[in-house]
Amino acid sequence: MVEQLADMAYGQTWEAKAKGAREARDASLAKVEPALQLPDGLATSSQHLPVEHLTPREYDLTTNYSTLELLKKLRDKTLSAEELTRAFLRRAAIAQHATNCLTELMWDEAIERAKYLDSLPESLGPLHGLPISTKEHQGMHLYNRPLDCAYVSWIGTPSPHSPLNQILWDAGCVFYARTNQPQTLQCIETNNNIYGRTVNPWNRNLSSGGSSGGEGALIGMRGGVLGIGGDIGGSVRVPAGNNGLYGFKPAAKRLGVAGMTAAMAGSEGVLATYGPIATDRETIDLFMKVVLDGQPWKIDPSLETRFWSPMTISKPLKIGVMWSDGVVQPHPPVQRALQSVVECCKRAGMKVVDWEPLDHGPAWDLYISLLYPDGGAAARHPIDASGEPMLPLIKWITVDQPESKERTIHEYWSIVARRETYRAKYAAHWNSTSADDEQEVDVILCPAGPGAAPLHDTAKYWPYTSHWNLLDYPAVIFPSGVCVDPAKDVKDESYQPLNEQDAYNHGLYDPEKSAGAPVGLQVVGRKGMDEFVMAALREIEGAMGR
Amino acid sequence: MVEQLADMAYGQTWEAKAKGAREARDASLAKVEPALQLPDGLATSSQHLPVEHLTPREYDLTTNYSTLELLKKLRDKTLSAEELTRAFLRRAAIAQHATNCLTELMWDEAIERAKYLDSLPESLGPLHGLPISTKEHQGMHLYNRPLDCAYVSWIGTPSPHSPLNQILWDAGCVFYARTNQPQTLQCIETNNNIYGRTVNPWNRNLSSGGSSGGEGALIGMRGGVLGIGGDIGGSVRVPAGNNGLYGFKPAAKRLGVAGMTAAMAGSEGVLATYGPIATDRETIDLFMKVVLDGQPWKIDPSLETRFWSPMTISKPLKIGVMWSDGVVQPHPPVQRALQSVVECCKRAGMKVVDWEPLDHGPAWDLYISLLYPDGGAAARHPIDASGEPMLPLIKWITVDQPESKERTIHEYWSIVARRETYRAKYAAHWNSTSADDEQEVDVILCPAGPGAAPLHDTAKYWPYTSHWNLLDYPAVIFPSGVCVDPAKDVKDESYQPLNEQDAYNHGLYDPEKSAGAPVGLQVVGRKGMDEFVMAALREIEGAMGR
Repeated sequence: MVEQLADMAYGQTWEAKAKGAREARDASLAKVEPALQLPDGLATSSQHLPVEHLTPREYDLTTNYSTLELLKKLRDKTLSAEELTRAFLRRAAIAQHATNCLTELMWDEAIERAKYLDSLPESLGPLHGLPISTKEHQGMHLYNRPLDCAYVSWIGTPSPHSPLNQILWDAGCVFYARTNQPQTLQCIETNNNIYGRTVNPWNRNLSSGGSSGGEGALIGMRGGVLGIGGDIGGSVRVPAGNNGLYGFKPAAKRLGVAGMTAAMAGSEGVLATYGPIATDRETIDLFMKVVLDGQPWKIDPSLETRFWSPMTISKPLKIGVMWSDGVVQPHPPVQRALQSVVECCKRAGMKVVDWEPLDHGPAWDLYISLLYPDGGAAARHPIDASGEPMLPLIKWITVDQPESKERTIHEYWSIVARRETYRAKYAAHWNSTSADDEQEVDVILCPAGPGAAPLHDTAKYWPYTSHWNLLDYPAVIFPSGVCVDPAKDVKDESYQPLNEQDAYNHGLYDPEKSAGAPVGLQVVGRKGMDEFVMAALREIEGAMGR
Repeated sequence: MVEQLADMAYGQTWEAKAKGAREARDASLAKVEPALQLPDGLATSSQHLPVEHLTPREYDLTTNYSTLELLKKLRDKTLSAEELTRAFLRRAAIAQHATNCLTELMWDEAIERAKYLDSLPESLGPLHGLPISTKEHQGMHLYNRPLDCAYVSWIGTPSPHSPLNQILWDAGCVFYARTNQPQTLQCIETNNNIYGRTVNPWNRNLSSGGSSGGEGALIGMRGGVLGIGGDIGGSVRVPAGNNGLYGFKPAAKRLGVAGMTAAMAGSEGVLATYGPIATDRETIDLFMKVVLDGQPWKIDPSLETRFWSPMTISKPLKIGVMWSDGVVQPHPPVQRALQSVVECCKRAGMKVVDWEPLDHGPAWDLYISLLYPDGGAAARHPIDASGEPMLPLIKWITVDQPESKERTIHEYWSIVARRETYRAKYAAHWNSTSADDEQEVDVILCPAGPGAAPLHDTAKYWPYTSHWNLLDYPAVIFPSGVCVDPAKDVKDESYQPLNEQDAYNHGLYDPEKSAGAPVGLQVVGRKGMDEFVMAALREIEGAMGR
């Protein structure tokens, strides 16, 4: 496959190379059987398609069970891995038709793997038979697959060994689909010159988010229950939020990035991490436990040597609610979602206080300084290599940001020192929350973004997620239960924006256009408190009656 | 004090500024009472001085008790903090006279603090009344003291807040002495243009080590039982080894460097860390426990959120012995020390295998590339600022190393990526040690350096310690019990050196000149195994009959 693509690519225009990759993707989809007869014209929401095109049994299996329930059936052998895998493969193909979320459907490989698992007398491991999807740039060395990271010039690059994929594999999973991502991966939407744009399954006029937007759309249509993305500024969390899902960004050194291919290897100003996107909270906890039980630090020694230790919280939480980051006011449905969850938490006896954002505006400039001390050159270089055009949001982030500039080593060191100072200031700020009542804020509850999923090519405000990468705080997205409702979420036409970014975001809001879009919220903990954040989410969802 | 020194420095030559700092140091020593009548002519070893110049009671208190025993007496109030503090202050003054290890004796402050502690009805904390010394560049904000980091141009710089000092203070310690360090701090000997050279208390013709060489000489004369140094290439461990002490370099993100002042802030290619130097192993464990009980990560969020969790080892250790790093052959007394400990371990039923060093030679170039991607300019800049001369070993490390050069951001990223690759290779190498017997090597036992304490201005081989900084592995130095013995440690005149570095090191060896010097050894664990390394040392010392 690698050689074949490389040959195809030799001496071709970028358009021809991209077409070759798309044809390979389409060929992988053509294996679906029974073949799906999907409509050419698509409604705004794609959520009606699965029930219409799957068998009742397939629909039931892919819709009505949690991951833990599926795993129990697989373990009990009341459900075969093959049947489940075929059902998710077909649902993934529907998701692809509706949202353009895949770069490859691994039909043959997944079924062969499922059959093998079914042939075993005992479960192979805790993920026995569970289909898992992965973002394309994470590669698929297990099947010797190439990758492209959404760069035309990289089409056909061999996948390196992935310790994460290996651990999931050893735990018994079935890899069945690889998913789309934006050019450069530095975008909170998903569009590129190879596979095109991934749209939102709830509303095709809206973004699926990015950079793990293929995962977001696939899982958002329940074309899977667990997918693996990566996050350096919101790339797991924005797709989770945009598609009504759960998405977790652990501290950078719990899962790391070993096995991921990216243009900026060796850059450490802000650290990226793998992260799961899932249909429920328990799947996130399971994923973390399974991966860390695999002791990835023995392969990737950059990681903390630390198993996943689920926590139980015994006293009522003290929650700091960040209604706004002080720079960009979230849209009305986000405010309504926060209010709704806060009411539940108060009713459950939790203490709720306002979280004062500390210098989030300047922190964005610091974030960009750390991300692009090369002026964004490394991220753009593979674009230039093929002649493919740079997409507008990529130009906006890598070129137009004033703090994206080439630095000397000493300039870079001083930026890193500023980062350390800011992190220490934020820690002191958090410490100060115990001043009044001797009880420190446990977690921050805040928006997942400045609105629900945005219209395409408009997502220019990362800091509701990127801020926690800058601080290396663990953060989890969960669905608030609120969807955009034009009747309830009226635009405040009298609103006076605080600044240019706020005016831009305010201008984007149109409740009619985003009607029905789910609203995600975010729970953020102090550095190192990954397990605590997940435990806090359990408390909060408990208060919400989940 | 800050203002006074700043005024003094204004418009002066570097010599005058340095003289001013020395005079301040001497004034602090002049407070000792009863005054000491110390000889002008000094013997090769200084170890006879304390018994000759202290009162019998002072000598007993500072010689015959472990830290834990002293703390018990202080807690029981069978010993007053003031008496103990005065005894160590006077012994530190003897150490200063003999080795030039101090930059300041904090006579008044320490006694005042001790009196305060004695006045309390209960112990203030687990270090109640214990005198602790600190390396000068760690500052002393608690007394609003200036610092200079061994740069003339920095004389009079205010100390920043030190979370580490604060935790030790809150635990009840007495700060009583600040210690000398080399120009730039980038040296494994101790010499600078302000305070001069610190010599070895066992043999004044030999180096006390560096960069925490003041600590090494002070504790090496039992002018204290616990001192705090810093380590980025061996700066805690080399002085521990050279002076017959214990020294621990934890993983970089357990203790961190918050509160330390250095010329290369923001540099993260290789990370520095605080580390303790002590007269016994239990003091190291105690120090780690007390500091991490103080939750320093709430002040310095770069740290791992992880308490100190002492471990017990229940099955016999498998020890990998690295007799040589494959580049420079350690001197005969080091080989003898290794053999002696190995025999004890074998007798105790431990499994002992040879550790194959993996590419330690090229790793040095990688280390230098990571340390000086600015060509060493930041480290040298404060030298140039005053006009003081650069010392030969500083030129050797920052200028003469071929891989010390100014890099672009992309070049630097590629060096960091090489570091990550090398670390992963080393982890795989370690994993492979279980291939034969399904038992992985638990710890590496290896030299603390290529010889015992070297003659002054000759220490040019860091990798026996710096290698573990490059890998971020925890490492502890302990005294082997072996001292250089010309009768036993005969030079092999027929030895054929492997390379230029090896020839240089071989040429340095002269058992007559280093007779009596203690030989330290090192126990190294995998990344994240800090507590395990200390537990393994307990097993090894147990096997040695300690």
